[in-house]
Amino acid sequence: MGALWMVAMVFVLLNIGLCNGGKTSPYVRKLYASDDLPKDTFPSPPGFNAPEQVHITQGDYDGRGVIISWVTPVMKHPDVVSYWAAGAEGKHKHKHTVHSVITTYKYYNYNSGYIHHATIKGLEYDTKYFYEIGQGNSARQFHFTTPPKIGPDVPYTFGVIGDLGQTFDSYETLKHYMANPKAQAMLFVGDLSYADDHPNHDNERWDEWGRFVEKSTAYQPWIWAAGNHELDFAPEIEENVPFKPYLHRYHTPYQESQSTSPLWYSIRRASAHIIVLSSYSAFAIYTPQYTWLEKELSKVNRAETPWLIVLLHSPWYNSNSYHYMEGEAMRVTFEPWFVQHKVDLVFAGHVHSYERSVSCSNLHLVDLC
Amino acid sequence: MGALWMVAMVFVLLNIGLCNGGKTSPYVRKLYASDDLPKDTFPSPPGFNAPEQVHITQGDYDGRGVIISWVTPVMKHPDVVSYWAAGAEGKHKHKHTVHSVITTYKYYNYNSGYIHHATIKGLEYDTKYFYEIGQGNSARQFHFTTPPKIGPDVPYTFGVIGDLGQTFDSYETLKHYMANPKAQAMLFVGDLSYADDHPNHDNERWDEWGRFVEKSTAYQPWIWAAGNHELDFAPEIEENVPFKPYLHRYHTPYQESQSTSPLWYSIRRASAHIIVLSSYSAFAIYTPQYTWLEKELSKVNRAETPWLIVLLHSPWYNSNSYHYMEGEAMRVTFEPWFVQHKVDLVFAGHVHSYERSVSCSNLHLVDLC
Repeated sequence: MGALWMVAMVFVLLNIGLCNGGKTSPYVRKLYASDDLPKDTFPSPPGFNAPEQVHITQGDYDGRGVIISWVTPVMKHPDVVSYWAAGAEGKHKHKHTVHSVITTYKYYNYNSGYIHHATIKGLEYDTKYFYEIGQGNSARQFHFTTPPKIGPDVPYTFGVIGDLGQTFDSYETLKHYMANPKAQAMLFVGDLSYADDHPNHDNERWDEWGRFVEKSTAYQPWIWAAGNHELDFAPEIEENVPFKPYLHRYHTPYQESQSTSPLWYSIRRASAHIIVLSSYSAFAIYTPQYTWLEKELSKVNRAETPWLIVLLHSPWYNSNSYHYMEGEAMRVTFEPWFVQHKVDLVFAGHVHSYERSVSCSNLHLVDLC
Repeated sequence: MGALWMVAMVFVLLNIGLCNGGKTSPYVRKLYASDDLPKDTFPSPPGFNAPEQVHITQGDYDGRGVIISWVTPVMKHPDVVSYWAAGAEGKHKHKHTVHSVITTYKYYNYNSGYIHHATIKGLEYDTKYFYEIGQGNSARQFHFTTPPKIGPDVPYTFGVIGDLGQTFDSYETLKHYMANPKAQAMLFVGDLSYADDHPNHDNERWDEWGRFVEKSTAYQPWIWAAGNHELDFAPEIEENVPFKPYLHRYHTPYQESQSTSPLWYSIRRASAHIIVLSSYSAFAIYTPQYTWLEKELSKVNRAETPWLIVLLHSPWYNSNSYHYMEGEAMRVTFEPWFVQHKVDLVFAGHVHSYERSVSCSNLHLVDLC
């Protein structure tokens, strides 16, 4: 079996089971969270209408696709991305282009820029690609590397972050992550920008966050799960559509796994089958998320992907008083399936305090612990 | 305190608590459900484009409003309803009119008729009103009686039905209900037409059901809760929007209780504060349903409405193996609030077998039972 390494960042919970998994780090969390970074700490890039907030995520089921997303603040164009395999520079015939799907949204007194999502499929495995958005002095170039072909003996290293926000601590966290050369893709377990902590959910904080994380998100795929700070539910300002900013800004390849919502989906990457759930959508029996998860779990092929990993925001086990038992409703609904299908790892966020446990379930506590 | 009588029909669960509430009826359920009535058992009324499937529900928070709904199968018009207080017949100045909001929907290969919803507000309490839709030989006249003014000493009698469907048994159930002259309004705990049991969720079965129940629904308000058969979620035929037919056909006065979804809301009627929940929508902490319920429970004024009643589809307590524990996720989320706010009655459907219990909660089983 291939080795799968977890780069566990601060804020991460690794939460399978009730048992005490021991203590492996001398890190002691500060009592208080730090302040948000001032606005415009991460200004827009130079050049008129230059593409910004660039981020990529996996764009298909098995890793040969990428969704490239960016924002143009003033005009719709550039709405095209060109890309080419490393080594093919200058050979025009090897440059490909793909157009974006463009969306915009209003949120209270905020009007978004043009949000672009361009999906590329059929890339070669294990290959470095460059891509470019914009022209002239607004052009910006980035690169990513596709994962190796799915298989049981395919080492791959994921980072894990949740509840990142945009504080001075967030900055340290991202710096810490990027200083580690091992991680090849990010498993992000919800709570991105914390824009909703600002008056009227100041959506400029969503833009700020997109610029803040770009130095990582433009170069390796971040696999997104939604947290409570993505709800942006604010009936007091007539914003009643849950997840509106998040769903406009962060696309996922949900249809590739036959999901009917971007909030729950699955991808396979290297030796891992990764299932993303939504703690704040309906998940009772008969609901779309429930019926989808039941089918998806039956598709897991351990001969191809020996690692079965679940990402969700609200942990099912948490020894802190903060957010205690908030994940209970989803636990009672799905835990028997997780035991039956032998889920290897569950990553959750939400509680800003690292915990992990050995693998067990309250259904079979004595047997497993 | 006013007397509040419950007309419990077959299929009804009265489900507070774990305890054995005893046996009060010699009724023994048949082992097998009966067949659906043939299509066109309830044909459209005579006259070109005559309004059909007429139904009313409460249209405001306190009972002075009514939503009148109907379907015109071929043309948009008539889109107006006229109404007048009993005794005011013939006096033109006492006739009022209100226009409908019109909606239509497609579902796979089905195209709905024009679905009308007309909201009347500011009616007199405790007053019989007539209303008429259509003109000439297509005109149809009905009547309803508004409830008495909210108050602690206001007797009122509700019927309760869930999981009605359109079988031969359904017909007996509705007949049985209508033979009882006491009931003044219906608490309907989900699962209306069972159209989804037919190939491609044959939505003509929704029309058939609307005509079937009209003889009651046109004359007294049915208070709607959604069940699993309202989901109509069928990705195999690209129908991915949960509750689509139900939400087009059955409107509720959700905004009057500051809800942001027709699937959960509250009304006050006579001596009762009635809260409707959605078993198949998101209800975890931070979600719209959760935050709404928390606020709504704090508004309950027992001096005005001594009865606090909750309607939901999937029971939290159920001793049958069928659907066992399906309501557990919602129970662990909301039960502490129900205990804290001393909910008097919870009506659920879903399990086609009558059960009831005395009032208790598993949180305080020994104390209360």
